Amino acid sequence: MLRTHTCGELRLSDVNKSVTLTGWAQRTRDKGSLLWIDLRDRYGITQLFLEEGKTDAPTLQLARSIGREYVLKVQGTVVERLSKNDKMPTGDIEIKVSSLEVLNPSKVPPFTIEDNTDGGDDLRMKYRYLDLRRNPVRENLQLRHKMAQQTRVYLDGLNFIEVETPVLIKSTPEGARDFVVPSRMNPGEFYALPQSPQTFKQLLMVSGFDRYYQIVKCFRDEDLRADRQPEFTQIDCEMAFISQEDILNTFEGLVRHLFKHVKGIDLPAVPHMSYAEAMKSYGSDKPDTRFEMKFEELNDLAQGKGFQVFDSAELVVGICAKGCAEYTRKQLDELTEFVKKPQIGAKGLVYVQCKADGSFKSSVDKFYSGEDLKKWAGKFNAQPGDLLLILSGERTKTQKALNELRLKMGDLLGLRDKNKFAALWVIDFPLLEWNEETNRWHAMHHPFTSPKREDLHLLDSQPGQVRANAYDMVINGTEVGGGSIRIHDRPTQQLMFTKLGFSEAEAKKQFGFLMDAFEFGAPPHGGIAFGFDRLCSLFGGADSIRDFIAFPKNNAGRDMMIDTPSTISQEQLDELGIDVKEAKE
Amino acid sequence: MLRTHTCGELRLSDVNKSVTLTGWAQRTRDKGSLLWIDLRDRYGITQLFLEEGKTDAPTLQLARSIGREYVLKVQGTVVERLSKNDKMPTGDIEIKVSSLEVLNPSKVPPFTIEDNTDGGDDLRMKYRYLDLRRNPVRENLQLRHKMAQQTRVYLDGLNFIEVETPVLIKSTPEGARDFVVPSRMNPGEFYALPQSPQTFKQLLMVSGFDRYYQIVKCFRDEDLRADRQPEFTQIDCEMAFISQEDILNTFEGLVRHLFKHVKGIDLPAVPHMSYAEAMKSYGSDKPDTRFEMKFEELNDLAQGKGFQVFDSAELVVGICAKGCAEYTRKQLDELTEFVKKPQIGAKGLVYVQCKADGSFKSSVDKFYSGEDLKKWAGKFNAQPGDLLLILSGERTKTQKALNELRLKMGDLLGLRDKNKFAALWVIDFPLLEWNEETNRWHAMHHPFTSPKREDLHLLDSQPGQVRANAYDMVINGTEVGGGSIRIHDRPTQQLMFTKLGFSEAEAKKQFGFLMDAFEFGAPPHGGIAFGFDRLCSLFGGADSIRDFIAFPKNNAGRDMMIDTPSTISQEQLDELGIDVKEAKE
Repeated sequence: MLRTHTCGELRLSDVNKSVTLTGWAQRTRDKGSLLWIDLRDRYGITQLFLEEGKTDAPTLQLARSIGREYVLKVQGTVVERLSKNDKMPTGDIEIKVSSLEVLNPSKVPPFTIEDNTDGGDDLRMKYRYLDLRRNPVRENLQLRHKMAQQTRVYLDGLNFIEVETPVLIKSTPEGARDFVVPSRMNPGEFYALPQSPQTFKQLLMVSGFDRYYQIVKCFRDEDLRADRQPEFTQIDCEMAFISQEDILNTFEGLVRHLFKHVKGIDLPAVPHMSYAEAMKSYGSDKPDTRFEMKFEELNDLAQGKGFQVFDSAELVVGICAKGCAEYTRKQLDELTEFVKKPQIGAKGLVYVQCKADGSFKSSVDKFYSGEDLKKWAGKFNAQPGDLLLILSGERTKTQKALNELRLKMGDLLGLRDKNKFAALWVIDFPLLEWNEETNRWHAMHHPFTSPKREDLHLLDSQPGQVRANAYDMVINGTEVGGGSIRIHDRPTQQLMFTKLGFSEAEAKKQFGFLMDAFEFGAPPHGGIAFGFDRLCSLFGGADSIRDFIAFPKNNAGRDMMIDTPSTISQEQLDELGIDVKEAKE
Repeated sequence: MLRTHTCGELRLSDVNKSVTLTGWAQRTRDKGSLLWIDLRDRYGITQLFLEEGKTDAPTLQLARSIGREYVLKVQGTVVERLSKNDKMPTGDIEIKVSSLEVLNPSKVPPFTIEDNTDGGDDLRMKYRYLDLRRNPVRENLQLRHKMAQQTRVYLDGLNFIEVETPVLIKSTPEGARDFVVPSRMNPGEFYALPQSPQTFKQLLMVSGFDRYYQIVKCFRDEDLRADRQPEFTQIDCEMAFISQEDILNTFEGLVRHLFKHVKGIDLPAVPHMSYAEAMKSYGSDKPDTRFEMKFEELNDLAQGKGFQVFDSAELVVGICAKGCAEYTRKQLDELTEFVKKPQIGAKGLVYVQCKADGSFKSSVDKFYSGEDLKKWAGKFNAQPGDLLLILSGERTKTQKALNELRLKMGDLLGLRDKNKFAALWVIDFPLLEWNEETNRWHAMHHPFTSPKREDLHLLDSQPGQVRANAYDMVINGTEVGGGSIRIHDRPTQQLMFTKLGFSEAEAKKQFGFLMDAFEFGAPPHGGIAFGFDRLCSLFGGADSIRDFIAFPKNNAGRDMMIDTPSTISQEQLDELGIDVKEAKE
């Protein structure tokens, strides 16, 4: 090694040792006869020290020429600092430099390599290799490494086998769009990149591998949002000879293990909530349960009193914001504007202030007496000082809008602390959901999810009412994982494909191998996949996954650093037997 | 769990326990009043036992209907066997069945699920999920998992960080062909799948990550040989602030750790051998050093005696096969035929038999006296009973042919035991090699490999003589890993691209980001990549990598099970803005 120690490890007990360090010049302070350099590497910062008259002149001169981010190799002696810095682990010592070598100079970096950099997003992405030098970004990737390690510790300990599944697979356009790869050896044919290893992990169960996992890259060619990436990583798991409870227990165990060993947090047992209950009480299939503020439905109390808006609504539903009764007109107007934003879509907001004196004031006093409002308040168990916020309209839309308002109130009231974690299993999802665009039923989870046996009789008459053996793990209002108990027999799988509008030929072309496999002794099985990027960002207390990925792409799917995608040569196109179409006018 | 125990864990100490097992029916023996079923899962086999009169009639009837590979759930009591089977861990006990459930029936599998199956290669690949049920294949994948685990244990212990690098990168056609992925969001542009994470790991060094690894999928669109796959896995590593010796020591440590913890073998320290020495003594840059049989050059002794074939040859070189002096005419003819095969390419084979009585007999007695031949034998330190085998001709071709003959003799003499392991570092590879097809110099390792400083002056005059800081790890004649100390400054990298025939624009388009990065404080760095599939097959004592990959592709790059590559829809092509060309007549 070019160094004897890292920049993070020397202490008072090392005083008088001769050491060699390597690293980057973080900053230089030149006080005339005295010169200090902060030398940085992945492990920390160590202060170097040179003194006119004591350090030899050429070394001192060289040191004075050093700019930010120069790569240095330094020999010297560990000495005790006169003025110690108790904010850094190496703050008790410094290195009296005897020799100095510039291993590589650096141009002035386009932004500062500091925790709070002056670099904008685009610049940081273009020079990602410099951005990765910054502590917060590096620490995110170290956290990610630790998460992967601990995931393996837990699953290896339970006899799971990590098996690598192929990346060059077959296009099966159900679900999101596939990325495809033209095959040179089979002209006119294509591989696809996996959206998940779903069918392969099921085949591994058919093979008897019984407990499988993989931390694996997956790919979806979707129009990107801020927190989506075309390639992303899953903790992908599957088990055979299990019930749904076994899966929930095993992977609740994983999440609790990660909290314990990565963050030192004892996560309590994870409650279960049905999809129906989540929608009713939170208007969301991924409720943030760090705070209560549950929905209460008011149809029985609020309808039939002449207030046309409520009377004509499918649902009248509200939340109680503790201690917000004294919100000003302006604050209440802002909340009204918030719910009326097109992406929220409510037509208006009704409020009831529960005054300190026990009286009530509402925006609908014209229609409702104090006695009426008192009954409403009773339903929420509201106390004097609380504020009721009520929306009405079509059931699903109103629930969704109130969910947004609830989350906003949670933010305003400081109830969504990033250092507090509330996990939840949402279970009993619907099997199917109606898609307005394609005018047919789609699988809510995926076509391999098994319906609940007791609901199967509804499949023809009320397909939307059939529940699936499907579950999501939700933490702080974010879906971090989801899975299901799978279909493991050919007739049910075939029925499912039929319900989803596959012709028999399509089903056979795309998934014939899986249905064949089900006929050779497929065991009951099920599994789950966690979004690893998302889980890491959640553990890191961040909103975006991007800084938990070493080399992310931007919202146009572009890597700004290496500048890809890019054109390829005509020779490559010819070998692949494809043409690029003329751009449309 | 549907089971209380696996099929591999019950012992005498469990006798009288009530248990529930699940698994596959391996075989049934029906002796009239007694019926046995071997129940198999990933963990082993447990014998089930039913008896007429004691087992209830419907259960017995059901048991009699069970075919191979049916999936069963069985309840019963552990009892001691009357006739024990000491060949299986559960051989002391059997299960007296009280209830039996068929979880899923099975069609008759297309081949037997036995260690030695009757299934041919194509059938096994098409029904890979059944092939994976066989012990040898499952054990290969379990070995692979253990190899990955122990690789991580070793590297994590040395502060390496696993960082995921992107899969959707940029096409850089130097080297093998890229697989490409059309970008829908950037019509006319393509991503490429990585042949290795080379540039990204170097950028991580520029970022200060200092010790990186990744067990990662890589992709090469090459015409496939039996032991190549279009997607394969590397243990990919890089270190900064190191010398070549540091890399060799660190990764020799990895290989020895794997031998120790996966196979229980103490591998001795790994010797170093220069490329020049390897070629001279073994005619190969990946010599099998499980046995000696080194080359000896005979030009000085064999030329000038009137034997035109030797006199006109650039190289006369031979090996000594211990104890083979009494090979018959037929055996010697077979060896001659072997070396004359087109893929070996020698014109003929000269032999010298060192007779037990101290005399010599050769195929060139006409030209050489007993005294001459004695001198030859002396050079090999040959003993009575040994056989010298000698080839001649152009240096490189003759070395390669003799290498093949040496390996063949090693096989014939049983010197290539799959349970014996000899590792070797081959170092000091040439930087460049001349490519006859493209009529230019190519990088022997890759364009990022640094030349030896002391050879740099030869770069213009004798480019073929410049050695690189490049090294391969060779085990039993197989290259299992290779790497180099990298260039870390822009001028040298630019010079290298120029030597390789890149225009400045090409170099900038493809690798500008890397050369830019070198200007912002790039540390000295280097690394290595191990072929993980190959390493696993070596540890497993197998020749082919295919059975160490869960779902491999055949030699046409096709996955026979899922039948990919395959056509995609016109809608998909349209969205991607590409056309498939008409097939050529």
